[in-house]
Amino acid sequence: MIQQSDIPDLKKVTDSEAEALCTRLRAGLIDTVSRTGGHLASNLGAVEITVALHRVFDFERDRLVFDVGHQCYTHKILTGRADQMRDLRSFGGIAGFPKPVESPCDAFVAGHASNSVSVAVGMARARTLTGADYDVVALIGDGALTGGLAYEGLSDAGNSGERLIVILNDNGMSITKNVGGVADHLARQRLKPQYLRFKKGYRKVMSVVPGGKAVYRVTHKIKKAVKDTLLPCSLFEDMGFTYLGPVDGHDVRGLTRLLRYAKEMETPVLLHVRTVKGKGYPPAERNPDRFHGVGRFCIQTGEPLQSSGPSFSKAFGDALCALAAKDDKICAVTAAMQDGTGLGTFFQRFPARAFDVGIAEGHAVTMSAGMAKQGMTPVFAVYSSFLQRACDMLIHDVALQQLHLVLAVDRAGLVGEDGETHHGVFDAALLDTVPGMTVLCPSSFAELRSMLEYAVHQVKGPVALRYPRGGEGNYRGDSGRGRSAVLRQGRDVTLVGYGLLINQILECAELLADDGVSAEVVKLNTITPIDVDAVSKSVSRTGRLLVAEEAAEANCVGQRLLSALALRGAAPGRAALCNLGRFFVTHGSVAQLHKLCGLDGRSLYQKALEVCAHG
Amino acid sequence: MIQQSDIPDLKKVTDSEAEALCTRLRAGLIDTVSRTGGHLASNLGAVEITVALHRVFDFERDRLVFDVGHQCYTHKILTGRADQMRDLRSFGGIAGFPKPVESPCDAFVAGHASNSVSVAVGMARARTLTGADYDVVALIGDGALTGGLAYEGLSDAGNSGERLIVILNDNGMSITKNVGGVADHLARQRLKPQYLRFKKGYRKVMSVVPGGKAVYRVTHKIKKAVKDTLLPCSLFEDMGFTYLGPVDGHDVRGLTRLLRYAKEMETPVLLHVRTVKGKGYPPAERNPDRFHGVGRFCIQTGEPLQSSGPSFSKAFGDALCALAAKDDKICAVTAAMQDGTGLGTFFQRFPARAFDVGIAEGHAVTMSAGMAKQGMTPVFAVYSSFLQRACDMLIHDVALQQLHLVLAVDRAGLVGEDGETHHGVFDAALLDTVPGMTVLCPSSFAELRSMLEYAVHQVKGPVALRYPRGGEGNYRGDSGRGRSAVLRQGRDVTLVGYGLLINQILECAELLADDGVSAEVVKLNTITPIDVDAVSKSVSRTGRLLVAEEAAEANCVGQRLLSALALRGAAPGRAALCNLGRFFVTHGSVAQLHKLCGLDGRSLYQKALEVCAHG
Repeated sequence: MIQQSDIPDLKKVTDSEAEALCTRLRAGLIDTVSRTGGHLASNLGAVEITVALHRVFDFERDRLVFDVGHQCYTHKILTGRADQMRDLRSFGGIAGFPKPVESPCDAFVAGHASNSVSVAVGMARARTLTGADYDVVALIGDGALTGGLAYEGLSDAGNSGERLIVILNDNGMSITKNVGGVADHLARQRLKPQYLRFKKGYRKVMSVVPGGKAVYRVTHKIKKAVKDTLLPCSLFEDMGFTYLGPVDGHDVRGLTRLLRYAKEMETPVLLHVRTVKGKGYPPAERNPDRFHGVGRFCIQTGEPLQSSGPSFSKAFGDALCALAAKDDKICAVTAAMQDGTGLGTFFQRFPARAFDVGIAEGHAVTMSAGMAKQGMTPVFAVYSSFLQRACDMLIHDVALQQLHLVLAVDRAGLVGEDGETHHGVFDAALLDTVPGMTVLCPSSFAELRSMLEYAVHQVKGPVALRYPRGGEGNYRGDSGRGRSAVLRQGRDVTLVGYGLLINQILECAELLADDGVSAEVVKLNTITPIDVDAVSKSVSRTGRLLVAEEAAEANCVGQRLLSALALRGAAPGRAALCNLGRFFVTHGSVAQLHKLCGLDGRSLYQKALEVCAHG
Repeated sequence: MIQQSDIPDLKKVTDSEAEALCTRLRAGLIDTVSRTGGHLASNLGAVEITVALHRVFDFERDRLVFDVGHQCYTHKILTGRADQMRDLRSFGGIAGFPKPVESPCDAFVAGHASNSVSVAVGMARARTLTGADYDVVALIGDGALTGGLAYEGLSDAGNSGERLIVILNDNGMSITKNVGGVADHLARQRLKPQYLRFKKGYRKVMSVVPGGKAVYRVTHKIKKAVKDTLLPCSLFEDMGFTYLGPVDGHDVRGLTRLLRYAKEMETPVLLHVRTVKGKGYPPAERNPDRFHGVGRFCIQTGEPLQSSGPSFSKAFGDALCALAAKDDKICAVTAAMQDGTGLGTFFQRFPARAFDVGIAEGHAVTMSAGMAKQGMTPVFAVYSSFLQRACDMLIHDVALQQLHLVLAVDRAGLVGEDGETHHGVFDAALLDTVPGMTVLCPSSFAELRSMLEYAVHQVKGPVALRYPRGGEGNYRGDSGRGRSAVLRQGRDVTLVGYGLLINQILECAELLADDGVSAEVVKLNTITPIDVDAVSKSVSRTGRLLVAEEAAEANCVGQRLLSALALRGAAPGRAALCNLGRFFVTHGSVAQLHKLCGLDGRSLYQKALEVCAHG
């Protein structure tokens, strides 16, 4: 691991010292991530550009906005957090994503793709309006550029005329070939060093010569007209950017020189940087996808040190393949998460019915709606927290016509080490607001399989199946097709839950039993709509209710249940809702986070005892 | 008005008959909208393209996907609804937007911008997968092209290689000059009629000559390489479209010919059509913005027949100007709704602090977050139903850092004649799921002014002010800074409401008083978080609760209140929730819709009597 004391003053290093530093940083990153897990390939690709940025800018005042944030480790190391890297992503340690509360050098949160340019143009406007003079830089990958928000941001940024720099970190994984081809052509025309020197010198001279500014403006206009006629245009220039690139993203000297040049420009600049994902670590260069997000691994072989075991994602992918083999209406849709959502096999087996639309969750939903309207059965597999991007599309394009779209909502609930931006704690609330939506919550692989079949073949209208990251717990049953199931009968208190947390609830019931308290456990298989009858029946006998869920408080199942019971005049004498409140939950292992939030079996048991102590 | 019997069989009309029909249709549109109100300027711009489309395609089987739907009137007339145009947008009459339940010729719902290309590519994929052979056409305006969803849709559509036609209806109101410029250049190269004829003939010959297909592919490749080198590229060609245009969108002969050509292509086609918004009606051509959406007007003068009166939007715009005059941190942001949201004056008085980002609600929120992070106070004015596009940005980019963004949520509640897609009935639920959000609900202009000042200067973190379309009711008071206010004291039942519906609730209380039932009226000024104490205090005396709100049922204020009361063991003996349920509400006047949904004073009164009859 690299030590804080190993980091030189970047404003003073020579080019060759900077190169040496990059080598040490890269080795340090590999070492760190091999021990902590995290995002490796993208961070390895961004070492030189990060070092170059820190040589040219001062990010205590200049603002560096990361997009997604999968490439911020070097930045963390260079801004005083080298010694904390050993606790990366662990509970109480530093986060795997930029986090302003961690450091004044972290300008903004990151996690969801494509927002950085929007943030940067907002910051640049604030800078100009307040008369400040700091620089604003957005660092965005080509993958994030497929998101509509990036396009909205680029259009506005280009149009704003604000001084800001967008660095397009292009590792060739996502950007379309055409855009790359145009960029190539442009780059050959322009990026010879003498051209840069001429351009810069010319502007400097012109700005001090009397009348020079006017002359510069006129010749600039002419040059632009000539260029527009003779050279292929670029999307970015059309939008109002000065385009620089593409340049080698692993040449720290060249990058530093170019950033110094870009810093002096008074317009929006787009700097196109070519990088290699996984750069400098052969296993990651060979297999950048597998080293995008990794657990602990052996540096020598690149092999994982812990096996990940069967997951809900894999169970989903397998189940969908089985259904698709018998039903050629079934299509799979993903927003750049083919492997993460377990769809890899589907894409291999049924390529004609498999659609990866890029990081574009809104489009994925609306495109699927178009398919559904014409008789197909699209299944959109998406991480819960990214589905937040598609709320309007679910309401407007799907629900209004009650189209049969199946949402496979992966990473529902707490995801662990990726933290705040990645926890899937809002989907249950948001999906409930979509008229006519059915939301199913499997608690085991067996239930996932049967519920998926039910969702695909029997539900009318929009339906979501939500399931967590990782594997199942002790509960491996299949509680059948009912909207709810009584897993355990009891007389003193009704415990209600759904999804994987049913394991903690069953544990709670065991602990209560040890104390002679008899708990009835009602598992909800469907959380929209809720089986109020079943809960009401149980509560009418026990008189006490505890609802536990790995979801935010707003519009949680507990709230809906209590309201429905009260409306029937059947409110329990005593009730408690255990959920994640109205906060963002930090990173750490899911078990640690359960304890933090009072959702582990023992915390639930204590809460249940409180409920039972009264009334 | 144009009669159904006036519509000829479009498959049989000659060019000059088609031209004559366009003239009659245009006169009919002006006549209709002058009586019914509606979207005029955009519909006048789309007469010829719609007629041409119906000459070439059969939209009982081919699919025509409108974007936004502001241009669908001619389509409605040509598909059997001419005689129903007199009831356009009125309760029980036909809708102002495409609506599949109205006609099999309406392929998909429309209302929210930028979704049409996504829908079309989904439909085209379904067509190909099912082995069908219908055509799919998306009609999108240049305004809608500023939305990120359109970009996501275009990228995927171009990349899909599917046979589909995207018609860009470019009335020059929104699209950037640069894109237009490039398009111009391309068009001059290509769109000479003889070029089209050559291209088509060449392909036909090559497809029948032995080995011709291979030759065609090779020469096609070479042509493409040459063109890429010599001609400016176009954004659309980069995306994978065959680009045709721009062409005169009021030349029905030329459009028909070009559509026939486009129909024969086997690739994604983008047809760039130049139109004049308001075409053929001088007042609308002169002032297309004012004739975008209009009430009834005098055809001779173009003047409105009913004055619209003071509105919450105007009160907001004036109040924001007053605050901005004293506080130079305040900025106004709109997503292409400068006038609709009442920001016109702000844009004139404070241009440096006024930002119109195009139809890009997600970007508007995230860009504002960037401004807020750097010390400005952005106020984003947006229609409730369009804010649905920005859920994730509110959670991820604003709430996670508790940035002080002020949302001015206009058109909250039922909007009337624009119907399902435009009612603002989900924002209360969705905003409540955003951690740390404060949601204020003025019931009068006076409250709007004081709440806006409070939101801007005193609230920390994200805050929304939600108010309806149109003006205030009988209630004109200012109930002060409390989170709630008791407007009327009573002992038999507690009536709770917020916003403009407080008028109906007060009416209900009056009607109850006539029956000798004493109702206490608690007005909520803040609906997130809710003043549970105040309601609890009232309910503890009355024992009965009725909550009425112009909002969808999911996560409604009534649900939240009942849950919170039950959790305290203070659930009312009898309760009723009056809201809009889990349906989409149709179009009609707000008063008609209130009756339909049981939210008028008399319906509430009857519901309150039921509540009082028991317990």
